[in-house]
Amino acid sequence: MTVTPHLFIPGPTNVPDAVRIAMNLPMEDMRSPEFPKLTLPIFEDLKKVFKMKDGRVFLFPSSGTGAWESAIQNTLAVGDKVLMSRFGQFSLLWVDMAERLGLKPEVCDEEWGTGVPVEKYADILAKDKNHEIKAVFVTQNETATGVASDVAGVRKALDAAKHPALLMVDGVSSVGSLEMRMGEWGVDCCVSGSQKGFMLPTGLGILAVSQKALDVNKSKNGRMNRCFFSFEDMIKTNDLGFFPYTPATTLIRGLRASIDLLLAEGIDNVVARHHRLASGVRAGVAAWGLKLCAKEPKWYSDTVSAILVPEGVDSNAVTKTAYYRYNTSLGLGLNKVAGKVFRIGHLGSLDEYMVGGVLFAVEMALKDNGIPVKLGSGTAAAAEYFTSNPVKSATSKEPLKA
Amino acid sequence: MTVTPHLFIPGPTNVPDAVRIAMNLPMEDMRSPEFPKLTLPIFEDLKKVFKMKDGRVFLFPSSGTGAWESAIQNTLAVGDKVLMSRFGQFSLLWVDMAERLGLKPEVCDEEWGTGVPVEKYADILAKDKNHEIKAVFVTQNETATGVASDVAGVRKALDAAKHPALLMVDGVSSVGSLEMRMGEWGVDCCVSGSQKGFMLPTGLGILAVSQKALDVNKSKNGRMNRCFFSFEDMIKTNDLGFFPYTPATTLIRGLRASIDLLLAEGIDNVVARHHRLASGVRAGVAAWGLKLCAKEPKWYSDTVSAILVPEGVDSNAVTKTAYYRYNTSLGLGLNKVAGKVFRIGHLGSLDEYMVGGVLFAVEMALKDNGIPVKLGSGTAAAAEYFTSNPVKSATSKEPLKA
Amino acid sequence: MTVTPHLFIPGPTNVPDAVRIAMNLPMEDMRSPEFPKLTLPIFEDLKKVFKMKDGRVFLFPSSGTGAWESAIQNTLAVGDKVLMSRFGQFSLLWVDMAERLGLKPEVCDEEWGTGVPVEKYADILAKDKNHEIKAVFVTQNETATGVASDVAGVRKALDAAKHPALLMVDGVSSVGSLEMRMGEWGVDCCVSGSQKGFMLPTGLGILAVSQKALDVNKSKNGRMNRCFFSFEDMIKTNDLGFFPYTPATTLIRGLRASIDLLLAEGIDNVVARHHRLASGVRAGVAAWGLKLCAKEPKWYSDTVSAILVPEGVDSNAVTKTAYYRYNTSLGLGLNKVAGKVFRIGHLGSLDEYMVGGVLFAVEMALKDNGIPVKLGSGTAAAAEYFTSNPVKSATSKEPLKA
Amino acid sequence: MTVTPHLFIPGPTNVPDAVRIAMNLPMEDMRSPEFPKLTLPIFEDLKKVFKMKDGRVFLFPSSGTGAWESAIQNTLAVGDKVLMSRFGQFSLLWVDMAERLGLKPEVCDEEWGTGVPVEKYADILAKDKNHEIKAVFVTQNETATGVASDVAGVRKALDAAKHPALLMVDGVSSVGSLEMRMGEWGVDCCVSGSQKGFMLPTGLGILAVSQKALDVNKSKNGRMNRCFFSFEDMIKTNDLGFFPYTPATTLIRGLRASIDLLLAEGIDNVVARHHRLASGVRAGVAAWGLKLCAKEPKWYSDTVSAILVPEGVDSNAVTKTAYYRYNTSLGLGLNKVAGKVFRIGHLGSLDEYMVGGVLFAVEMALKDNGIPVKLGSGTAAAAEYFTSNPVKSATSKEPLKA
Repeated sequence: MTVTPHLFIPGPTNVPDAVRIAMNLPMEDMRSPEFPKLTLPIFEDLKKVFKMKDGRVFLFPSSGTGAWESAIQNTLAVGDKVLMSRFGQFSLLWVDMAERLGLKPEVCDEEWGTGVPVEKYADILAKDKNHEIKAVFVTQNETATGVASDVAGVRKALDAAKHPALLMVDGVSSVGSLEMRMGEWGVDCCVSGSQKGFMLPTGLGILAVSQKALDVNKSKNGRMNRCFFSFEDMIKTNDLGFFPYTPATTLIRGLRASIDLLLAEGIDNVVARHHRLASGVRAGVAAWGLKLCAKEPKWYSDTVSAILVPEGVDSNAVTKTAYYRYNTSLGLGLNKVAGKVFRIGHLGSLDEYMVGGVLFAVEMALKDNGIPVKLGSGTAAAAEYFTSNPVKSATSKEPLKA
Repeated sequence: MTVTPHLFIPGPTNVPDAVRIAMNLPMEDMRSPEFPKLTLPIFEDLKKVFKMKDGRVFLFPSSGTGAWESAIQNTLAVGDKVLMSRFGQFSLLWVDMAERLGLKPEVCDEEWGTGVPVEKYADILAKDKNHEIKAVFVTQNETATGVASDVAGVRKALDAAKHPALLMVDGVSSVGSLEMRMGEWGVDCCVSGSQKGFMLPTGLGILAVSQKALDVNKSKNGRMNRCFFSFEDMIKTNDLGFFPYTPATTLIRGLRASIDLLLAEGIDNVVARHHRLASGVRAGVAAWGLKLCAKEPKWYSDTVSAILVPEGVDSNAVTKTAYYRYNTSLGLGLNKVAGKVFRIGHLGSLDEYMVGGVLFAVEMALKDNGIPVKLGSGTAAAAEYFTSNPVKSATSKEPLKA
Repeated sequence: MTVTPHLFIPGPTNVPDAVRIAMNLPMEDMRSPEFPKLTLPIFEDLKKVFKMKDGRVFLFPSSGTGAWESAIQNTLAVGDKVLMSRFGQFSLLWVDMAERLGLKPEVCDEEWGTGVPVEKYADILAKDKNHEIKAVFVTQNETATGVASDVAGVRKALDAAKHPALLMVDGVSSVGSLEMRMGEWGVDCCVSGSQKGFMLPTGLGILAVSQKALDVNKSKNGRMNRCFFSFEDMIKTNDLGFFPYTPATTLIRGLRASIDLLLAEGIDNVVARHHRLASGVRAGVAAWGLKLCAKEPKWYSDTVSAILVPEGVDSNAVTKTAYYRYNTSLGLGLNKVAGKVFRIGHLGSLDEYMVGGVLFAVEMALKDNGIPVKLGSGTAAAAEYFTSNPVKSATSKEPLKA
Repeated sequence: MTVTPHLFIPGPTNVPDAVRIAMNLPMEDMRSPEFPKLTLPIFEDLKKVFKMKDGRVFLFPSSGTGAWESAIQNTLAVGDKVLMSRFGQFSLLWVDMAERLGLKPEVCDEEWGTGVPVEKYADILAKDKNHEIKAVFVTQNETATGVASDVAGVRKALDAAKHPALLMVDGVSSVGSLEMRMGEWGVDCCVSGSQKGFMLPTGLGILAVSQKALDVNKSKNGRMNRCFFSFEDMIKTNDLGFFPYTPATTLIRGLRASIDLLLAEGIDNVVARHHRLASGVRAGVAAWGLKLCAKEPKWYSDTVSAILVPEGVDSNAVTKTAYYRYNTSLGLGLNKVAGKVFRIGHLGSLDEYMVGGVLFAVEMALKDNGIPVKLGSGTAAAAEYFTSNPVKSATSKEPLKA
């Protein structure tokens, strides 16, 4: 078969051609006198993507998981108490990492399909009069269940309690897709990776850090052993446009192209597009009579939908059929929801046609596996949504007249 | 917008990634002693694609139009009488070329939406007792109207009349997609191009020539002025694996990859896949309540569907909306059917998902332009067709068990 | 071996990475409403490369040989007398084409290693009082012998004789590398191709035509049979940004990138760079004690050097050793000079390092074949030339201060 | 300027076209059922590159520095005594990391330009009767000074002392270029990265681990905090062909192509080629009358030469001139030898032409900066070496007959 599988996992996402060709280059000298002309503007432009008001962004040759580790190692100490919640595979793994790195997390275990329990957090923070909690963790987008959480709400809880804890956000599958306002929301570490909203291959851990977190790092330097992921080596060299060890220059070239695309479209437009396309997907799912893993609309993620299959059906059979028979890669169910959900990633470089294509493929895969969906119902519902909510001109590149 | 437009014109077709990367190479010396190791096997393998029993295949750095010209210049003489038919923009252009190059075509003008009139051809050939007709022309696939013609039928007409005329076939948009059996059907010149079933960029005129046509060329050498498109210069150098002037090495590298894909899938499987996917498209069109330009099922092309819009609607408005609002390139109506049809190309590197995607986009574009289609009806019909006629395993790469 | 052979043939030339990636794209619709935004500016910018004062440029999906044919077919008639000269494989082939297309060339046969005989041309033109000569042909750069001819001189001869003949120039291996001033020199058809100074793969015949030639074409339309290479179909569609048949969109995307590079460097700087690098090569050849095929400095081409091997040596052995042992592709000797010369192409995307690299490889290949060159002598002479004539700053991207 | 700078830094190295295009692909699902068919054979084939007799290879989405960290974190505990030596920037940095991660290194400080002090190591190990030293560290190739050390010698020292310490080797800039026999030499952790001998972009930390080290890891699990770089998560998923977090699939595709190239050439042939090309470079340096930073031939590295400039000259001026004027990237002098040496990387995808090219460029840059080298002397010496020691046929692809 000659067609590359259609990719609808929640990352890596589809790489735009402009980004793909930007990386199709020979190697270059990362210590050349011209290299900083590439890197310094990227550091600045990334702040626009994260909507930071101060601080800086680090680029590690790693994945988002590595950036998680960096955020912890550089701002916290072994034995520190932190507030976390667990309601899906990725929030679970972050807790696991925190424990393995020596933190003492107080963990709110929430039902999978819900998200960060803002009220509980508020209570706990209010009671923590001695400020033993050094950091509060938020998984903004739980990729395993398709749940988005309320970062701004957690900020409010911190402010209400006048609590100085750092606010740590896992934005791996949200930054560049969902709303992220680091400055306004007082986020201290926002972790991301290249392979989601940034529409690049895996390989860059992107970590945005507020000035407050940088100050904490400076004053508490050395409390957690680290080297590869240390801020201090990065800062020293990044300021000149260089890196403490060989950077992933190819991905940095791609990142330049990716940021250009994001800023050209406008971050707010990118967020709106994700909401529109996700709404199309959800209209389709509803038309099939299936339920999302996310319990309520307030938890719905605009980057990924985890869809529950009926009792008695193995969701892995659906993803296998989609893959082998319809050349379409869907996300598997992970951990607690393995076999119970399949996931459609709808983030990054995506348009209406692709939503239609994936709904079409999924409908067939569902039917092939004996799930009684009406063929055409999902695509009909999405088409209905899109045609009822036009955003582009039907006759030119010019924006739609209001 | 970051997504490259989805391409559903009847050529250029989508280039498979394996072919795309095969062309992403530095230039090479087309006179190097190693070059023939690339070219000689390609010449042989092309014969398998055309199902030739003798003769050879020429590769001109041109388009299919250039290969049309070569076929005429090398086998016919100024003033020769030829039998042609005209029922669409491309059969029309071939007649125009024949006239401009000095031939005297007897032209059967057929209704657009029909194809080569086999019975008329039979009559005319039977009456041509003196064999004044030197060649009979067949446009196997009329790309403008989505009409496929009966090459084997024309062969039978020639045989019935015991007529020695050459059989010239325009296979630009059929070879590698529709059935082509040059040897069995006694086709003498079969014209193709790189950008259709061969799934390459435009730039190679591919001309397959029977031994009979080569003999005619040899015995009548020089009767039509030519140089760039001459067989004789090609033969001299091709036999050694070289070319008379600089060949398009990049495309030849791509052609290697493309032939590998075609032969790996199996030509008959490729043809069957095209029929399957075209059937899905036609099911969708029928569900919309729209008609094809092709008058009867026997004319339906498995590579492109020209779809009539209702009276009073401009088909260009539909293609514009598909392009600007849904990022999908459709074929325009050309010449007599301009404004009356739009076309969906469904040839080359294509799968079910893509059929679903384009039907989805077209449905919305139709609705946006006031054509009363039921959203979801086209995708439903195609999905119904595909799920009722499975050809691939739902659980592995292994072929479906019967 | 993992290194792609180093390419020093006089075309195809090395493709810059910016051009290579510009072609690493999916296919696009050549009838999309956005396509003219790509093509129309290219048509304009090409005029700057050719330094035209009027007329237009055609882009055929062919090679330079096809553009030769187009120039003849569209401006001349069968039986027309033309003035040509023959002093190398490519001037020879152009004469051959002219004859095969029905022209009656008066041919000046010159010694290989010399070029267009301007004085002879002047005499012949002066004597042609009845203006029977309809066109005068000049091979600006004879790629086989490394000889550049004096186009401006031929213009002067025409002017001196007040002769109205068209001036036809083969600029395939000169445009974008050597000086070309179509407007100032009154060139009527200047033929080029994508794979030389334009630094692209083979596949575009680029034909620049003066208004005078366009007028001739218009008034004498139809005198030579043609279709694929006809001006009139091109003009009709090019004016709207389209083409009469499927264009090589990939190469046109590459051409956009290539023109951008040429204009960014500045055409005059490009020409100067070629002179500088060619001078380095020639310094090396002189140091080896070898002679150029070009008889005198006035014939030296700045795009290719054909180098004579000593009597008794087979130049093909040298090119073979360079290729197999030193991974370096040189040009072969062709026709009369087969076995007697090898060629170093030094045009297109080239710098000092590459001149050093090829001289290094050639020195070794010469020595390996028993030719008594002093190792290091060629590279020394080139390095001497380059260091004595610096053109770039040693410390920054800024131009060298005078 | 259109030519991409010629790259002669000791990593990233030049990426072969076969590897470059293998990475020019859309993203893929790293959890697809077909993914293990890619990864499992890679894990096996990597063992051949490292010449392991047992153990396994980890692929981290990081750089070599990350793999350094992984080796330490997974096999050693905070407070462990280790034996290290420091004689260049990279051996220095590894000591720094060891200290920051909590080890207690006993450090042999050696003169820069020498390498691992095998005799000292032998003495220290012999005296360490209680086996307090848990690991012995060897920087096989000190990239900063162009010094290769004797890993086999260290093995002998360990064996002579019957010392059970782990043998940790930094092979970042040696594996795939210099001899590495993990099994034979009893190396326990061999650290490498994608961007040197593997000829890939930066982004993979490649860590080969013996069974002995895996056993140590298992028995002492948890003694050093870690998560991203932990063996245990990797092992669990790698065994099935997957990864604990999103792997760098693009680089893994490239790694497949790179390993194919290495194994096709033959690891021993790759090593021999590096020696041959390095010898050419060193012949050139000697002819210039310059000295290597490496004090004695036994320290000479076949992957990089650090070249001392005469007193009073700033080596950075030389690298700048090479870069800006001759489009050639050389390695800078780092730390103690900053301003005193420049470096020519000669590893990875390299041939004789490239050695000639870089010597040519460097000669000119030296002369431009007032260093009295004889132009042509370096290229002459290298050419002399290469032509006196032919390894390839001069007339065909077949290997040279003995």
